[in-house]
Amino acid sequence: MTQSFVISGDLLIGAGTAGDDRSVYAINPATGANLEPAFAVASVADVDRACELAAQAFDTYRATSPEARAAFLEKIAANIMDIGDILIQRGNEETGLPAARLEGERARTVGQLRLFAQVVRSGEWLDLRVDPALPERKPLPRSDLRLRQIPLGPVGVFGASNFPLAFSVAGGDTASALAAGCPVVVKGHLAHPGTGELVGRAIRAAVAACNLPEGVFSLVTGANETGAALVRNPHIKAVGFTGSRGGGLALGAIAAARAEPIPVYAEMSSINPVYLFPAALAARAEALGKAFVDSLTLGAGQFCTNPGLMFAVDGPHLDRFVASASGTLTERAPAPMLTPGIHAAYDKGVAALSGNEAVKTVAQGLAAEGVNRSPAIFFETDVEHFLADEKLGNEVFGASSLLVRCKDVAQMVAVAEKLEGQLTATLHLDAGDHADAAKLVPVLERKVGRILANGWPTGVEVSHAMVHGGPFPATSDSRSTSVGTLAIRRFLRPVSYQDLPNALLPPELRDEGIKSLPHLLDGVRK
Amino acid sequence: MTQSFVISGDLLIGAGTAGDDRSVYAINPATGANLEPAFAVASVADVDRACELAAQAFDTYRATSPEARAAFLEKIAANIMDIGDILIQRGNEETGLPAARLEGERARTVGQLRLFAQVVRSGEWLDLRVDPALPERKPLPRSDLRLRQIPLGPVGVFGASNFPLAFSVAGGDTASALAAGCPVVVKGHLAHPGTGELVGRAIRAAVAACNLPEGVFSLVTGANETGAALVRNPHIKAVGFTGSRGGGLALGAIAAARAEPIPVYAEMSSINPVYLFPAALAARAEALGKAFVDSLTLGAGQFCTNPGLMFAVDGPHLDRFVASASGTLTERAPAPMLTPGIHAAYDKGVAALSGNEAVKTVAQGLAAEGVNRSPAIFFETDVEHFLADEKLGNEVFGASSLLVRCKDVAQMVAVAEKLEGQLTATLHLDAGDHADAAKLVPVLERKVGRILANGWPTGVEVSHAMVHGGPFPATSDSRSTSVGTLAIRRFLRPVSYQDLPNALLPPELRDEGIKSLPHLLDGVRK
Repeated sequence: MTQSFVISGDLLIGAGTAGDDRSVYAINPATGANLEPAFAVASVADVDRACELAAQAFDTYRATSPEARAAFLEKIAANIMDIGDILIQRGNEETGLPAARLEGERARTVGQLRLFAQVVRSGEWLDLRVDPALPERKPLPRSDLRLRQIPLGPVGVFGASNFPLAFSVAGGDTASALAAGCPVVVKGHLAHPGTGELVGRAIRAAVAACNLPEGVFSLVTGANETGAALVRNPHIKAVGFTGSRGGGLALGAIAAARAEPIPVYAEMSSINPVYLFPAALAARAEALGKAFVDSLTLGAGQFCTNPGLMFAVDGPHLDRFVASASGTLTERAPAPMLTPGIHAAYDKGVAALSGNEAVKTVAQGLAAEGVNRSPAIFFETDVEHFLADEKLGNEVFGASSLLVRCKDVAQMVAVAEKLEGQLTATLHLDAGDHADAAKLVPVLERKVGRILANGWPTGVEVSHAMVHGGPFPATSDSRSTSVGTLAIRRFLRPVSYQDLPNALLPPELRDEGIKSLPHLLDGVRK
Repeated sequence: MTQSFVISGDLLIGAGTAGDDRSVYAINPATGANLEPAFAVASVADVDRACELAAQAFDTYRATSPEARAAFLEKIAANIMDIGDILIQRGNEETGLPAARLEGERARTVGQLRLFAQVVRSGEWLDLRVDPALPERKPLPRSDLRLRQIPLGPVGVFGASNFPLAFSVAGGDTASALAAGCPVVVKGHLAHPGTGELVGRAIRAAVAACNLPEGVFSLVTGANETGAALVRNPHIKAVGFTGSRGGGLALGAIAAARAEPIPVYAEMSSINPVYLFPAALAARAEALGKAFVDSLTLGAGQFCTNPGLMFAVDGPHLDRFVASASGTLTERAPAPMLTPGIHAAYDKGVAALSGNEAVKTVAQGLAAEGVNRSPAIFFETDVEHFLADEKLGNEVFGASSLLVRCKDVAQMVAVAEKLEGQLTATLHLDAGDHADAAKLVPVLERKVGRILANGWPTGVEVSHAMVHGGPFPATSDSRSTSVGTLAIRRFLRPVSYQDLPNALLPPELRDEGIKSLPHLLDGVRK
């Protein structure tokens, strides 16, 4: 199968296509117009067929050598680049995101595929352990025990609307699951079905080029019913999802109700508190205010790590920050949001805050010119009101942020104890703030997956030490990350082999295989 | 607080005691008689108080140095040994298990505490990763990123009835959670409350001796209501449980219904298939039959890894095995089971199989003399009947096993595809069986946590390469193990620190700390 660069509206099920009923169109959010062609929506039968192929492919795919699996990931990356400008153009039409953003996101997408290829080759993820036999041990001898991690099985991945490349069809969840040895069935997002199909065709061309079984990858585009069928399918052994809290909880409930419950990794909602410490505010309130607005309005605020909540000690330096942020914000023109639904939800969330007597509107951006866009907005309240109304802590997906004025640093720490789980917390601080910040950091560690200093939470590095995760409701499972190489661990489980003849062991655990791979020998790193 | 060797019937809540209503007695299962004294059952208020203390202790306890935490684990082990013979005596009275077994189990219990002390010192569990800043990178610079694992928070541990020491108050779940830095609230099992109290007093004397906050450990003994209160308490962030499928599923449902759902690690049910391959059977059918009965009847069959299901190719060598096993079994006298409830459940499970027309009783042990004991029993059926009635795959906790006669090895492999998740699978094989076994191993890898050859599944080594876990319903979470050092990972989650000033980083991630600890530097092992 050579790579095809057409957008047909087909579902991609293994090496075949499906989808007779073409009734759904992508919408250009910048104009509100439908985009050709019409797309098929996957039925339960389509999903089941994709999952059946994935199950058939599993044992063959998981037995691929590290080199073969790494080469496959790299081939996917190369094929995505080969799509060329039509991918950026279609992505722009379907999402309203500018070409430069999409080019950056494409670089991240192929970068993370190539990074996972390195991870697969390094062998760290196998977590190999050997406890040699101790035949003379008293009172009982010890058997030879060897451990490796194996993939869980076929994985269902939900494309996210806000990252049409980096967290969609060939995004982080797909890359980490394929790296782990799991076939992937992607539930493509109807917000960007054409972009998804182009990428899906790149993946399945790589499957064919690498002589892998067709079931290693399928793309079944659809909405809630398609997604539910995917999570219910008994061949699916884990799910990766990025989206709303309601969506993540619904998928978790479906997964828990299965005859065999499975893990759902849902990255759901976060408002990413930012703490402005006194010395930092005194030193650079104006610069902070401007940088805050840059982070707030990036991508129309449509990031999981958008700075939606700020805490600072009341006083003249905070007023300087507010003045700077307000002045910057009022000049910002709104960009189109990803979908009419996301835009409507943003307007609703902003209206709820605007209409809340405890909340004051500090500033907002320029009025919208065109559909599916609304001004960015910046609110403030005080600690008492914030604590009295838990709705003030709800995520408003988009460029909306709430400043909570605190009496002192002690109050900032006390409020932190009340926060729900978050993806990130950000500290702006100088050396003079370190003693205060040291009281806050242990609290934040219990609340978030990433703590950052003197930066902004938007912009998530794909690397080995990244955590894009955090306690509920930021995610459904704080024990993992959806970005970075540690994500591979989500799709693995350990198996122990006791006294197995060398010939029956997997290659990496045989006497001749383990020598060249990182492992623990009796608990000692080799 | 010096160690107290009394059995008072008190609940141990932090450094205090509680429990006014003394209404429950331990039962000596060998005689059916009550044992003094009366024990308190923990109320919801008692549980909540213990969890509140655990939450208060968390930040202090998790900040202990590796050396301090390791010394604490070793002090617990020393204190348990200091209890001396009264622990073995009380354990025997409460469980009916012989002294030699309890002495072995005590050795395992203190051994695993000491092993986790080594694990804590080694630092591997911290999973440290550093991605240094790349200020000159284009198009965007990279921040300094550092990652470590931190403990989830207070953990609720359910003592198991069948391991009154090694999987109860100071058992594997407690040891791994304390090693991870989590305070522990144990729901003690009413099958051995006095044994539990003695061990609980040993742990809290260690808490005091090591100057740790009292909330690091509490013991709240009780039944279902006490356990439900523990899982519901919002301070509890993870649960470890070993017991029945019904119990594990009930706790999982409670955990999933919380405002903040939490992971439940429930080790539930497994019948541990054993495969007898043709060449091995031809070579040593008689010895295998005798060894099988030894494994089946060990501890009255009350092990999660008891060999409850066997598969072999029909023929004269299998008949030799059956004759040997039958001859050995008919001479075995039954031992008292752990509780009247477990004994009644065993009788019920055996009656269901005995009354099933598809099942033939091959042999049973000697008739019972005394209460709470029943003969061991060995059944057989064929593949068609086994596949037609899923009840034949249900666990009968105790010394009951079912042989499934197969037409050929291909049928053994085909049936394996139909099995539910299991803790273990066992292969008896010789070199001539390797080609056949190679077809079975990949199937078993998808079904079990441990594959062993030419041994028996009972007897679980506590080491680095052990997996005591497996796909549902063997456990609720196949991604982990409850035995062995990898169990520490169940109670950890990753946190990333981005550009944090050195002074605000945890000691192990500071420039001067990380040098001496294992870590990944830009993904490369150091």
